[in-house]
Amino acid sequence: MSEQAEAASGSVNPAMRAAVIDLFGVLAYGELTAFARLAADAELAPSLSAKAALARMAVAEFGHFELLRDRLSELGADPDAAMEPFVAAIDGFHERTAPSTWLEGLVKAYVGDGIASDFYREIAAMLDPASQELVTRVLADSGHAEFVVTAVRAAIVEDQRVAGRLALWGRRLVGEALSQAQRVAADRDALAALLVGTPDRPGADLAEIARMLGRITDSHTRRMAQLGLSA
Amino acid sequence: MSEQAEAASGSVNPAMRAAVIDLFGVLAYGELTAFARLAADAELAPSLSAKAALARMAVAEFGHFELLRDRLSELGADPDAAMEPFVAAIDGFHERTAPSTWLEGLVKAYVGDGIASDFYREIAAMLDPASQELVTRVLADSGHAEFVVTAVRAAIVEDQRVAGRLALWGRRLVGEALSQAQRVAADRDALAALLVGTPDRPGADLAEIARMLGRITDSHTRRMAQLGLSA
Repeated sequence: MSEQAEAASGSVNPAMRAAVIDLFGVLAYGELTAFARLAADAELAPSLSAKAALARMAVAEFGHFELLRDRLSELGADPDAAMEPFVAAIDGFHERTAPSTWLEGLVKAYVGDGIASDFYREIAAMLDPASQELVTRVLADSGHAEFVVTAVRAAIVEDQRVAGRLALWGRRLVGEALSQAQRVAADRDALAALLVGTPDRPGADLAEIARMLGRITDSHTRRMAQLGLSA
Repeated sequence: MSEQAEAASGSVNPAMRAAVIDLFGVLAYGELTAFARLAADAELAPSLSAKAALARMAVAEFGHFELLRDRLSELGADPDAAMEPFVAAIDGFHERTAPSTWLEGLVKAYVGDGIASDFYREIAAMLDPASQELVTRVLADSGHAEFVVTAVRAAIVEDQRVAGRLALWGRRLVGEALSQAQRVAADRDALAALLVGTPDRPGADLAEIARMLGRITDSHTRRMAQLGLSA
């Protein structure tokens, strides 16, 4: 039985199982807070239609949360216990990056979630196919992209100074995300081992990790450009 | 063609059509704010499971909002325009009754929404069957009841003083709801005419309105008792 099949069946390899539960735990809590954050951002919306559009995105995130929670239960894990180790890091990120305007909220939803999704997808590539498939499904765009790009570009056309302020905001989001990711990597051995390997199983080497960070950085730069912002 | 069939088909009788659009408009905005409020209350939840349970209720309210918005569109009304006249009253209610604790939020979800639902159902009884059916559907319990009753009763068992504070809170919710309802009734002729009638169409007489208020009060008292609170 291959390592991947074992992890998929929830059987033997305990290190892989721990890593899968960690990844689903952090993703589940991320989706639950994304729900709360988008619902709160909806309150800043300039019109009732925009409010409903943000609320619709929040509802999609909650659907993803439920998929992850159910998979955790199927794997025999307690969803609350699986999420708990990541509450401090994710709450910390959101406290340090609370948007003060509607546009900051939109950029955060697009750019912040974009980086997080890229990172989770890179990790998922090291898991069994069933786990990979679930991660891909819950990270599918929830309709953020088009709505956000249109709104941010329109705001920049109306007032050029907006672009400078939002570019700074984008850099702050990346800095805070990196510092919380380091915190998680330092705390969660199983997740970190997925990337860097263990004595039994070689992980990515330094060159591969550098390439991964390069891919994530490139995607971020592309998303900022989409919004009309410099990264 | 009966008045009811006319209203259902969106055709002739303009007074009835205006009343239906008003009712769906106030309900739609009520559901959209219920979504936002439950999502915000979820942040006060004492556990991740409770947080997810509140978020689940919020998602159900958003589903109701979408049903009403789609029906407004089918009737040829602009949903934003239909909701707009009720934004000030509903936002005013929520500003004056922002819960400061988790339990206040739960009592508000149960008691506040209960009164509002009873009132809307009484009004819907004067509409065509299709409109009535939609109102009944969107006012169906979204899972609040059992969850709230269990949590509030447990809190009272743990600390008897909670009962006195929450009973006062319940009275405040009713007072604020009545004052906002009067504001809406004074502003929206079509809705008010549904109740009190017009020269062409007799509405409820005073005795019937008194009975309706009696029914709403009785249900409120029953809900408070369910929670272990005096009304």
